Amino acid sequence: MKEMGIGLLGFGTVGAAVVAGLQEHADLIARRVGVRLVIRKIADLDTERDRGVAVDPSIMTTDAAAVVNSPDIDIVVELMGGVGAAREMVKMALELRKPVVTANKALLASHGPELYHLAAEGCTDLCFGGAVGGGIPIVRMLREGMTANRVDSIYGILNGTCNYILTRMENEWLLFDDVLAAAQAAGYAEAEPSLDIDGHDTAHKAAILASLMLGQPVTSDRVYVEGIRGLSELDIRYALEMGYRIKMLAIIKLIDAKLAVRVHPTLIPLGHLLAQVGGVFNAVVLEGDMVGQSLFYGRGAGGDPTAGTVLADMADAARNLVYGSVRRVMPSMENEEDAISYRDIADVVSRYYLRASLLDKPGVLARITKVLGDRAISIASVMQIESSAGAHVPVVIVTHKAREGDMNDALRDIDALDVVGAPTVRLRIEDLGETS
Amino acid sequence: MKEMGIGLLGFGTVGAAVVAGLQEHADLIARRVGVRLVIRKIADLDTERDRGVAVDPSIMTTDAAAVVNSPDIDIVVELMGGVGAAREMVKMALELRKPVVTANKALLASHGPELYHLAAEGCTDLCFGGAVGGGIPIVRMLREGMTANRVDSIYGILNGTCNYILTRMENEWLLFDDVLAAAQAAGYAEAEPSLDIDGHDTAHKAAILASLMLGQPVTSDRVYVEGIRGLSELDIRYALEMGYRIKMLAIIKLIDAKLAVRVHPTLIPLGHLLAQVGGVFNAVVLEGDMVGQSLFYGRGAGGDPTAGTVLADMADAARNLVYGSVRRVMPSMENEEDAISYRDIADVVSRYYLRASLLDKPGVLARITKVLGDRAISIASVMQIESSAGAHVPVVIVTHKAREGDMNDALRDIDALDVVGAPTVRLRIEDLGETS
Repeated sequence: MKEMGIGLLGFGTVGAAVVAGLQEHADLIARRVGVRLVIRKIADLDTERDRGVAVDPSIMTTDAAAVVNSPDIDIVVELMGGVGAAREMVKMALELRKPVVTANKALLASHGPELYHLAAEGCTDLCFGGAVGGGIPIVRMLREGMTANRVDSIYGILNGTCNYILTRMENEWLLFDDVLAAAQAAGYAEAEPSLDIDGHDTAHKAAILASLMLGQPVTSDRVYVEGIRGLSELDIRYALEMGYRIKMLAIIKLIDAKLAVRVHPTLIPLGHLLAQVGGVFNAVVLEGDMVGQSLFYGRGAGGDPTAGTVLADMADAARNLVYGSVRRVMPSMENEEDAISYRDIADVVSRYYLRASLLDKPGVLARITKVLGDRAISIASVMQIESSAGAHVPVVIVTHKAREGDMNDALRDIDALDVVGAPTVRLRIEDLGETS
Repeated sequence: MKEMGIGLLGFGTVGAAVVAGLQEHADLIARRVGVRLVIRKIADLDTERDRGVAVDPSIMTTDAAAVVNSPDIDIVVELMGGVGAAREMVKMALELRKPVVTANKALLASHGPELYHLAAEGCTDLCFGGAVGGGIPIVRMLREGMTANRVDSIYGILNGTCNYILTRMENEWLLFDDVLAAAQAAGYAEAEPSLDIDGHDTAHKAAILASLMLGQPVTSDRVYVEGIRGLSELDIRYALEMGYRIKMLAIIKLIDAKLAVRVHPTLIPLGHLLAQVGGVFNAVVLEGDMVGQSLFYGRGAGGDPTAGTVLADMADAARNLVYGSVRRVMPSMENEEDAISYRDIADVVSRYYLRASLLDKPGVLARITKVLGDRAISIASVMQIESSAGAHVPVVIVTHKAREGDMNDALRDIDALDVVGAPTVRLRIEDLGETS
């Protein structure tokens, strides 16, 4: 059987899982692909460490560029991470017209336009299924499964660490800081957790999904981001009492030809399937005009799930080399002729959950509702929580749809009132209806 | 832009939705595919009826064979249904080496081996994403997304009519016959409902999914089938009380290299995402050795969702013609060199829910448990329901894992006891654990 030479850059968790998966399923994959994928070289700064997988030491090197340039390497698999050396290596491979498979979300979210363009110029494949959703084939779905659908909305739980923290806070009635510490101890959160809990990782993935939805590159600097750091367990509880669960959500919507991509903790209806996605799992809801809502659920991270997706991409790239069908799918990704029009976050419309801390005396609530009313923000429900602690009581207000800009103005005015004891907590509600 | 001639056989609900979708998204699809899909001929016995979509009358014909044979038709789309004329037309197209796109589950489930073989011989594409799951891209997932995974289990809610009936029975506390009548009135069930409620439609789809899982054709005569006809609302309620929901489930498992495919009402844990799939929606759980459990959810039937999948298949077939990459994916489907080994239903192991109707006097339950114990079937829990009606009371027994054959023997003995007032209801439990 014909062989295809693979050069692997980066021999970490996913890299080792790719090697192990290929070893375990060598015949299965060869039969399915029609060609044998052979890892001929592996580059990593550490060529010694035991990754729990047997590798011929002679294929290990610290010289990534030599791997990319080697004539026996047909496909370059970039699993180094980061946007420095990884970017240089991916560029080098694409310039050599070698197909690249990568799971590097940060790289695509920041330098996607450059790389998509290079792949188009070199007429070669750039596959990145492993960059979003780990084992969930969401990139493949958007690239190939939705060919006939105009996708106008995507909602995603894309970060396992955030979802794990929120799930434990709710189930065990714990504080954010305590769950974060436990997650760090258990290896579900990094020692430096900002990339996850402040929403940047989700933003990277959201940018990639938005790019696929539009067929044009969207970079993560166009994504509005708020993290879950310091989210109060009170809001998790009050949301539940009103029939919502708080999830860290990426929301991508094209409305009136304007794109808005945002990432923030979001109240979603308990009755929606997405609200049932717990722990480290990820899920993505697509809304296509022909198919309606679809949901894809699975393990969004981890060596084996991501390696499975990376291997499927390697199979695609190999098939395209064998059949001469390079760039068979989605050649329009580099299409920049139509500039994307973005909706400013101030113009995004949604419903809001507010938790105000109000002085417990007559007429106070009326002052709050007047401020909201003055901005034409109407109230859907109010819940005053009985409290014996201090002079201020929490009041939860759920609004009907309002412009974010108007809500910001109203909150500024509300928090300036002398009856307000602490900054008002503001969270967004996403009803996830098929027409919302 | 290059054009690809489409011949459409069958102009019913899905056919009309394909035409409408292609009209509405002509430019979008052309840009994504790189070629323009043009419907050049439509064959249907009824060339007059208004389908709510504008079609040039001159492309309508009653002569399907003429469409298949026409030199300006590059791709044949079979949406006629049935296994008579449809089979002849698909065979004719494949023999002409024209790619075929079909959504005909009955045809594939009965004549798959013949058709896969013909497609291989003619070296052409046979695409059938629309045959299973409607708008859920489960066929594409198994064909392309799971290349590196050994998939050992699939669980599917694959029939919207059954799921609609079960959901309404539970939510509104209705009887099976009443919900069926209402579903028929609302157009969610056929006047002759047997294909749906007796499980044959689910069995067709299960056979196709099993074929994809194995890479070898499985026909629906190898599927064990029990329908939901006459399912008692009592069992829905008792199951709920024990933490389970009854779903009409296709279960495909490869254990010890033996395949078992079965379709029957099944108790699944309320906490699993699959239990939350209500109404006419479908969902499929895949268990891959690298990815673990994944779930795909969406509209499993209907014109637009299915048409979206059919159009994505048409795009694939067109790309493969343009790029010369025909049969790029999954050429091993016709591989019959390894005979499949099937597990007899009598050897399938699962947990059971039993509802016995027992004489309300001391020692009776002991006689039942003795029969079970004699067959080495151990009991996990017993729930005796208080009842004032008649001499017999319902007793619900949940067992640990047991062989189906042993359970059948035990039930025969139990129902022969003089203390048993009616045939014992037996339902299977599927715990859906990743290791079960």
